[in-house]
Parts: sequence; structure tokens; C-alpha cells
Amino acid sequence: MDLKDIKHPSDIKQFSIEELKGLSEQIRQFLIEQLSITGGHLGPNLGVVELTLALHHTFDSPKDKLIWDVGHQSYVHKMLTGRTEQFSTLRQYKGLCGFPKMNESEHDIWETGHSSTSLSAAMGMAIARDIKGEDHSVVPIIGDGALTGGMALEALNHIGSEKKNVIVILNDNEMSIAPNVGALHNILGRLRSGHKYNWVKDELEWLMKKIPAVGGRIATVAERVKDSMKYLVVPGMFFEEMGFTYYGPVDGHDFEDLFNSIQYAKKTEGPILIHVITKKGKGYHPAESDKIGTWHGVGPYKIESGESLKKASNGPGWSKVVSDTLIKVADQDERVVAITPAMTVGSKLEDFKKKFPDRLFDVGIAEQHATTLAGGVATQGMKPFLSIYSTFLQRGFDQVVHDVCRQNLNVAFGIDRAGLVGADGETHQGVFDISFLRDLPNITIMMPKDADECQDMVYTALEHDNGPIVVRYPRGNAKEAPKERTLKKLPIGQWEVLKEGEDAIILTFGTMIDVALEAASELEQNDYTIKVVNARFIKPLDEQMLRKFAQLNIPILTIEEHALKGGFGSAVLEFYEEERRPIPYIQRMGIPDRFIEHGSVNELLEEIGLTKEGIVTKLKEMVPTKEKRA
Amino acid sequence: MDLKDIKHPSDIKQFSIEELKGLSEQIRQFLIEQLSITGGHLGPNLGVVELTLALHHTFDSPKDKLIWDVGHQSYVHKMLTGRTEQFSTLRQYKGLCGFPKMNESEHDIWETGHSSTSLSAAMGMAIARDIKGEDHSVVPIIGDGALTGGMALEALNHIGSEKKNVIVILNDNEMSIAPNVGALHNILGRLRSGHKYNWVKDELEWLMKKIPAVGGRIATVAERVKDSMKYLVVPGMFFEEMGFTYYGPVDGHDFEDLFNSIQYAKKTEGPILIHVITKKGKGYHPAESDKIGTWHGVGPYKIESGESLKKASNGPGWSKVVSDTLIKVADQDERVVAITPAMTVGSKLEDFKKKFPDRLFDVGIAEQHATTLAGGVATQGMKPFLSIYSTFLQRGFDQVVHDVCRQNLNVAFGIDRAGLVGADGETHQGVFDISFLRDLPNITIMMPKDADECQDMVYTALEHDNGPIVVRYPRGNAKEAPKERTLKKLPIGQWEVLKEGEDAIILTFGTMIDVALEAASELEQNDYTIKVVNARFIKPLDEQMLRKFAQLNIPILTIEEHALKGGFGSAVLEFYEEERRPIPYIQRMGIPDRFIEHGSVNELLEEIGLTKEGIVTKLKEMVPTKEKRA
Repeated sequence: MDLKDIKHPSDIKQFSIEELKGLSEQIRQFLIEQLSITGGHLGPNLGVVELTLALHHTFDSPKDKLIWDVGHQSYVHKMLTGRTEQFSTLRQYKGLCGFPKMNESEHDIWETGHSSTSLSAAMGMAIARDIKGEDHSVVPIIGDGALTGGMALEALNHIGSEKKNVIVILNDNEMSIAPNVGALHNILGRLRSGHKYNWVKDELEWLMKKIPAVGGRIATVAERVKDSMKYLVVPGMFFEEMGFTYYGPVDGHDFEDLFNSIQYAKKTEGPILIHVITKKGKGYHPAESDKIGTWHGVGPYKIESGESLKKASNGPGWSKVVSDTLIKVADQDERVVAITPAMTVGSKLEDFKKKFPDRLFDVGIAEQHATTLAGGVATQGMKPFLSIYSTFLQRGFDQVVHDVCRQNLNVAFGIDRAGLVGADGETHQGVFDISFLRDLPNITIMMPKDADECQDMVYTALEHDNGPIVVRYPRGNAKEAPKERTLKKLPIGQWEVLKEGEDAIILTFGTMIDVALEAASELEQNDYTIKVVNARFIKPLDEQMLRKFAQLNIPILTIEEHALKGGFGSAVLEFYEEERRPIPYIQRMGIPDRFIEHGSVNELLEEIGLTKEGIVTKLKEMVPTKEKRA
Repeated sequence: MDLKDIKHPSDIKQFSIEELKGLSEQIRQFLIEQLSITGGHLGPNLGVVELTLALHHTFDSPKDKLIWDVGHQSYVHKMLTGRTEQFSTLRQYKGLCGFPKMNESEHDIWETGHSSTSLSAAMGMAIARDIKGEDHSVVPIIGDGALTGGMALEALNHIGSEKKNVIVILNDNEMSIAPNVGALHNILGRLRSGHKYNWVKDELEWLMKKIPAVGGRIATVAERVKDSMKYLVVPGMFFEEMGFTYYGPVDGHDFEDLFNSIQYAKKTEGPILIHVITKKGKGYHPAESDKIGTWHGVGPYKIESGESLKKASNGPGWSKVVSDTLIKVADQDERVVAITPAMTVGSKLEDFKKKFPDRLFDVGIAEQHATTLAGGVATQGMKPFLSIYSTFLQRGFDQVVHDVCRQNLNVAFGIDRAGLVGADGETHQGVFDISFLRDLPNITIMMPKDADECQDMVYTALEHDNGPIVVRYPRGNAKEAPKERTLKKLPIGQWEVLKEGEDAIILTFGTMIDVALEAASELEQNDYTIKVVNARFIKPLDEQMLRKFAQLNIPILTIEEHALKGGFGSAVLEFYEEERRPIPYIQRMGIPDRFIEHGSVNELLEEIGLTKEGIVTKLKEMVPTKEKRA
């Protein structure tokens, strides 16, 4: 049967192992070819071809619940559930989502994007099943990286004690996005290299009988040997201790081994963890030999060589601008320590790591710990810089409130991927951080307009001695490389006027500066002059400037690539409310009150009207016509 | 030496064990007497008297870093660091804080209140120490309940792999606030009842030699016996697996045992965990025999009987109103499932648990898991009700965003302790939830004015079929018990006018309704009439009503017991901005941009001006005088 004829998991139910192997070949070929055009999460999906086939061969989706942790490894699942033909639109505007999506298929029963959620979701489904008296399997598939996330450990702790039937598939490829870290990683390493044991009780008891009866201290030890029987024959004692039956290691590319383990799991009462060893990038040499995570998610590439076909851009990536500046400052200031939750590669910290191996801490997928760790470092007069994606900082929110802001510690946050991120879509848009941070006392929030200002902000953040401070920066590349110049400490809360004008004022920052300037230029051709302000401090606001603007009695337009509710524009409204009258005529542009799906950033900005045209139209509505003004 | 003469930890350095025992007696007596007047966390502190003395006897604070997880058990530490005389002001306005506080003492090096942060903070301090080349001990003291929090597990995973010198004191009293749950709890239970072992390598090797040389499968088992040596002699294999040296169990009320273990820890390279068994409430019979957590934190009581001296209030506690309603609805609707993160007692869910033992899930201190678990339950058409304190929901923020709101799941949140909480102070004030929730698409947020409306809101939340919905309610008691009546589903987004008036409009909700009505009455005596609106839906707003109000051209005052930044008042400002002109003259009252410390709720409201007088003054400023109006 040809891959393109598979529309439903039931189509492969009768496949022999030989047929499944053939299909695996087709799927790998398809993924390598298709993703060379669209880009996507190649490595993770090549690793789970056999595993996904085995799961759909054995379980009955959607009656049985397959839950894909993180979800970037769900491509094969999407192919087996009738979506192969949509892969040409993968991660594109209005196209196939790169993560599970309920509205795409009844087989996508849980949406993901952030890691470590699948075990909690599975437990919820198991609880519902048992209350309703239903009979089906609940099967979360979680990577070894995601397992170190605190919420996954919380869920293990709960599932292990409640003894519900949950079949956890641990997809262990020794990588999350980057190579994994932490003690659990070491545990898995020991298990990975071990042999598979089932219960060999009889043999063990025979052996026990051979241990001589002795007295004194030795007797105690011998007693303990007998007590510990279980730990002798079951290698996964960490998981056994947590209340799970452990089964493994299983070769994730061997159908027979996979089928045996799943059958065993189905027969087992209570929670079980199947430890499946897979190879990220399996079957495509450049991805298979990747040691640092380059092939986790990729843009278009040449199939033969693996060479990236990404269009060259003029400026460097924002993450690179930040990390280069970090190195520069760390070189002068020994107090600087960088912390990242599993994003050494994503946040471009490899060079920092090379230069200061003792001052870079990759804590794995553990945003809560990362945030409070930074707080702990700060109490000792050091200068921690926590590099973290906007959407992942949500995981460390309480720690920002309670440990950092409340104690007013000098933690510098580099909030990466702030704003719309494009192809990763709604789970990754960084469009809430201003709302959830701005209400916290003691915090300072900045966003740069260009690479030079970005450098100054990183420097300002590390020099800041008055509590937590954030520099947020977008995904993608700056327009130009930063100039060779001395880093400058910015005066906190001071904006800059980029362009003078008399008919209206635009207050904006970051990615919206350029488009605002363009809109202002266009309006000049219609005889309007617009003042454009780089509101680079989102908190505190430049109150002096805002007071002056109130006197001008001209309309003010705020623009932000961020949720409108509680965002920067709201801060401006609040300021003028606090100032009492006169309140200027203010309008706000930003992201409306809904989740924004995937697509290119430009398509998404177009959709929500954050474009030059949108701004021009808005300003024309706001500013009285020449005739009226005269 | 008398307790009151101890001003510094060095004062007890030379104490003999007998003298320490005498001091323990004095401390217990003091705590039991003092807290019978002021109230406070009696149980936790009676449990750590000997442990705290032993730590200060052995370590040199503040050079050595003692970090109290959660911090409610830091009273003895406060006494040994010169604060005994301040205990008459404990948890009172401008008095001694119930948690560690940097501005009280140089010995309070890390502030707590929320659980599970101490290990991350400790790791941060250890990192700083090693970079700076300093030499001191870092000693987090964490309870067995706090250890199940995901961030503590993330930290264990990091510390265990980095091999830094950190001495974790696991204070195991088998309770967090309530009895503990989870697989880890079971692990600790097994360890608790075990014997203490150090490394008895010699004996073990002798024993191993007695195992006969055999072939075949048995040989494999025998081989494994030898490999597993470590797990035979070290009982804390969970912690050993995580990269820690395990030492325990230690009798937390036996000085000799404590000193030996701490000396052992100081000599040990790399991270070590000392498993100390303590008895919550030790030395005071009513607290010692507490099985459910009543004596965790208490108000004033009669010393002889333990009888509470709490003043009777007319109405029932808000938590009780909510949980009674939950029972009522769950009785009719089998889909209702209650979830709590270790707050069965605090959230008054004991009766629900008794009635529906299979539909109440206490997941321990695990807010992230609790939130996504609720999401998982909701996917199966069930009706999860997550009962959670406002300040602790901060821990589950990403899960609210990513798993619940983004998937638009029907999860009902009962946000307990919303608003100022009083004596617990700044770590527990529930004054940010509107800001961090309101910007999330799909969510509905309500707050009731009285017990009847609270019942209707719980019912509305459980009947709601259009995504996540929140009913937030304060700490303390409702004014009156709810009436016997049929529960009513409230129309989403519909406010109610409680009092008509023509000079100004107050928009408020929850706890501020009564004081607003009083202010309006007072102003009536000055010939002003004020319209008072119960803005019980914080999201969505009652847009129809707001549009009507804009036409009235009278001032609008919003009042909320919540942070002003991004709160309800900001939502009103945003609405009128979106509506374009005419924008009414709006002023907002609420909590300013700083953390609010402990004190009675009334004192705190007074401090920030959220009083009848404050409202009257504000309205007088806003409303033109009769003369002007005429």
C-alpha cells in the first residue's frame, strides 16, 4: 500500500512487520523530501517513525488516547491520520500546524507546543475514564528532555501513587532540543546501556537461598539483600520507586521489540513506563549525526548535503546580538553568569559557553528552577542573565513575582522570541509578557529598536542595580549589525523622539518602530506631520514626555506587537488616568483578544492590521482633516 | 542562659546538649504561650526546635547560608537571631513577619512564603560561592510536602548533576499543610521506617564472595546483585539516583543524632540530603495529635484545651460557601470533579471528599500539574473545578495560558484568597490574578458580592460550556449565610445596578461593594447621588451598560482590591478607548505598584486608601460642586 493511500490508522492494522518496514521507508523518504522544501521538525520525526507506526498498529485511536508531549514529533501521526497531502502547507499560514491540533483531526485529542504537559493531561483523561467506567488506554509519549520539566515530575508523583492505568512511552533520544542535562539524564543513561529484565523471581529466590545464614552486622546486610530483590531484577528503580512498572530498554526502531513491550504494557495493571530508545534524525545522515540540535527544527535545505537554503539576511540574529554583548560584558565583569533552560543553541549561547564554561548554566527544561536560581545567584552580588523565550517565561511566572520581583533582586532577563514568532504558531507567540510582567512592582521592561540599542540594553540590564530588569527582543534578525562602539548605559525610563511632527504622536517600540516611521513618511506626503517616539522603556514610562504630550492636545496612537489587553497601550491609558485631565485622545493598536495561529510574521501582522497601511488608515481617522483643523 | 538573653546564634555555640535541651523547653513554652495570643504557624515551629538549634550550633549564619523553604517554620530561627522580643507583634501590621524577611535580620538571606523555592536559591548561592572562590555551607531546609513541588524536583535534578556542595535538610514530618500525598511520600515512608546505614562496603564484599559462581541466567542475576551493591547498603536510592548522598533517617528531636548527621554532611563532597524526621506540633498535645492540619497555622487559642478563641462571625467562610455549592452541584451532576493542590483543608473540601472520595483529587503541592490535570479531565466532557489560592495559581500560569485557555477547555477555577489576605502578608496577597488572567483569550472572570451570588457563580462556572471560567473569592467570611434557594445561572457579562444615582458612577465588585455603597450613602447626605454597579463580571465587561454610561456624561470611579496596573479599572479604560469618543472622565482606585506587607486586611485597606472615607474624598474631587453644576 502506498503512503498516500493511508487515510486512517485502521489502514495499517493488518500490516505485517515487513510491510511496516516498507512503509517506514516511504515515510522517511517523504519527510526528508517534504521538509527540505517547507522546513520543520525533521530530527524528532525521523526518530519516531517505527514508534508511531507501532502505536497506531496496536492502539485504536481516537478511542485510545495518544498524547504527544511537545507535539513537534507528531508528523508521522498526522500522516497516518489522513493528512499526508497537506504537508506542502506545513507550518504555513492557514496550513497544517506543526503541532497537534484538535480542529485538524479527531485523532489530535490534546494540543501541545510547550513540553512536559502530556502526563498531567493523561492522568486527567484516566480519571475521567475511570469515573465514567470506560475502557481504553491512555498513552502519553514523552521525551527524555521533557521529563525533567517540573510539571512532568509532579505528574509522575501523582500517577505513581494513584495507580491508574496509564502507559507512559518514554521516547529517549538523549536530546531535548539540545543534548539533555541533569541527574535524570544520567539515570536514563545507565538504563539505556543496561539489559532488559523482566521478573525473574524464581531464579532470584534460588540465589537468595545460597546466601549463608550469618549473624551480626552481616545478617543485617543479608536481610537487606533480600529486601532489595526488586531493585536487583528491575533496572528502572527510579521509576519503580515512583510507583511505575518499568519496562526497557526497548529498541525504538525494532517493530518486534516495540510490539512486545506494548503488549506487555496492555497486560500490566497500574501505571507503566516503557523506555524506548530512539535515534533523532534516524535515516538521514546529516540529521542523525547532529550532536547539538541543529536538525531539531530546520528551514529548507539541500537534500544531498543538508546545507541550509535559508535566505541570507543583512543583520545578525537578535539572540546573537544579545549573546555577543553578554560575552563582551562578561569579559570585563566576573559577576556575569548566564542561565538558560535548555536553550543554549536557540539563544545562541554556544560561544559564551566556550569562553566561560563555568559561568553558563543550562538547567534543562526547567524554567521555574532557572528563574529562582537566577534569584539565588543575585543575592550573592553576582549578575545573573536569564536568557529565556517569552512564551516559556510563563512557566517561571510565580518565580518572577515571588522570588525575583518581591525580593527586588538584580536579575537581568533576556526575553527572547518576544512578539509573533511565525511558523511555530500560537503556542510560541511571545505576546503576553508585557501584560503579565508590567503589573509586578520593582520590574523594569525594555525593548530595543535596533542592534545598537539592543547592545546598550543588555549592558544597561547588567549594570542595573535596582531590581529586576528585562530586555525583550524578537525572533529573527536585526536589520543591521551593531556598530563598533562603546556600550552605553541608558537612563531608566527615558524615551527618544525619532521624528518630530505636529498632527499626531505615535508611541511605539521594538519591531513596530520601522513600520511606524514608514507610515509617518507616507502621511507627510498628505501634509500630515507625525511625531514618532521610541518608547523603549515599557516600564517605567517616560512620564515627563507623556506630560508634555498631554499639553499638545493632539491625538496619540500607541502601537505594539503584543496583546492589547494589559499591554503597553494600557499603561499609557493608565498614566493619563492617574494624571487626571487633560486626557489626550488615545488609540491603541496591537494584538486582539484571541490566540494567533501560525504563518509568517508578515502574514500574521497583515491579518491583525499591524502594517504601514493599517497605521496610515488609523491615523487618518484620528487626525482631523486640514480643513477641519484650519 | 535565659531565652530572652540570646541575641545572636553565637550565644549558643558553647551550649552542651543538656543546655540545648533546656533551651528547647524554654522555646516551646514561649511559642505555645505567645502564639496562643497572636496566632501563627505553631505546628511547624514546634517541630523544628531541636533542628534549628542544631543548625545554628553547627553552622555560622550568615556566612553559612540557612534557607528556610516556605519559611513558616522560621520562628525559632528568628528567636535565635535576636527577635524574641518582637513576637508580641507577630504577623501584625508593621510587626514581625511570619516568614523570613531580609530587612529584619542579616540572618534572613532568602525570603520565602511559597513552597519549593529553597533548593533553587541554594544552588544559585552555591554557584556564586564557587565562582567567587568562597568557602561556606549552603543549607536549604525543605519539608517533605514542598519536595513534591515541580520546581524542587527540577532543582534536585540540577544540583544532583552539577555535584556542587549543597547540604539539603529534608524536614520530614509527613505533612505539608495537610497530610502529604504522592509517590515520593510513599518513598519517604519506606525510608522513615528503615534503619540507618553508612557505607558497609567491607561486609558487603565479604557477603558477595559467598554467592556461588554459577552459569546461565542465574549468572546474570548474580552479576546484577554485585552491580547493585550500592542500592543494597544505601536505603535512599531515589536520592542516590538523583546524584545525592543520602543520610538518614535522623531523629529530628535528638541532638546527638542531628550533630552526627550534620558533621557527616560537612565532610561529604558533593550534594547530600539529610533525612530528618520531625513531629509537627511536638511538645503541645493538641498540635501533636493533629491529623489533618488544623494546627498548621492557627489563631489565638486557650492553652489548656487548644480551643480556638477566634471571634464568631455571622457568615460562613467563603471557601465553605464554595465547597458546599460544589457538593450541591456534584450531587446532581456526575461530571463534577474537584481538584486541589494540597489545600483540602484550606479550601474546606473535607466534606466533598467524604461524600465523593473518587471525585476529589489532592495532588499535593503541584499547581502546574493540577491545572493541566483539570484540562485533561475537561477534554473528556467532565466538569473539573480547580480550587486554588490566587497567589498559588501564579505557579500554574503557563498551564492556564497554554493548556486551558488556548484549548478553550471547560475548566472552572475557584480562585480562593483573592484580594488582600492579611497576616500572611506580601507573599500571599491575591492581587495580581486579574492582571495575569484578563489578557488571556477565552477566559471569563467573576467575583461575587455575597454568599448567594457566590453560589450562583459556582453553579454558573460548572454549567458554563464555552471555555475556562473563574470565580474568585476572598479570604475570610461572607457577611451572611446563603439563603435556601434554587441556584441560578448568571448571564455571562451582565452587571447589576445596586443603587441609582445621577452625579457619578461607581463600578466595583466583590469585597469593595459594601464600602462603595456606604460611601454612596454618606454622599447622599451632601446631596450627591451616586450610581453603584456590581461589576461582577471582570471579563467580559458589560459593554452595553458601559455604552449607556458613556452617554450620561458623569464621572466614573472604578474600585478594586487588586493591583491597579492591568486590573479591572484598566479594562474599563481600554473599553472606552476602543469605543472611541466620548470617553467619560474615569478615575481608578486600587492597589498601588508595590508589594503590600502583612497586617489586618482593614489596616492594609486603610494604608492604601480603599476605605469609605477614601472613596468619599475621591468622589468629591471628581464631581463638580452643586454650584458649579447648576
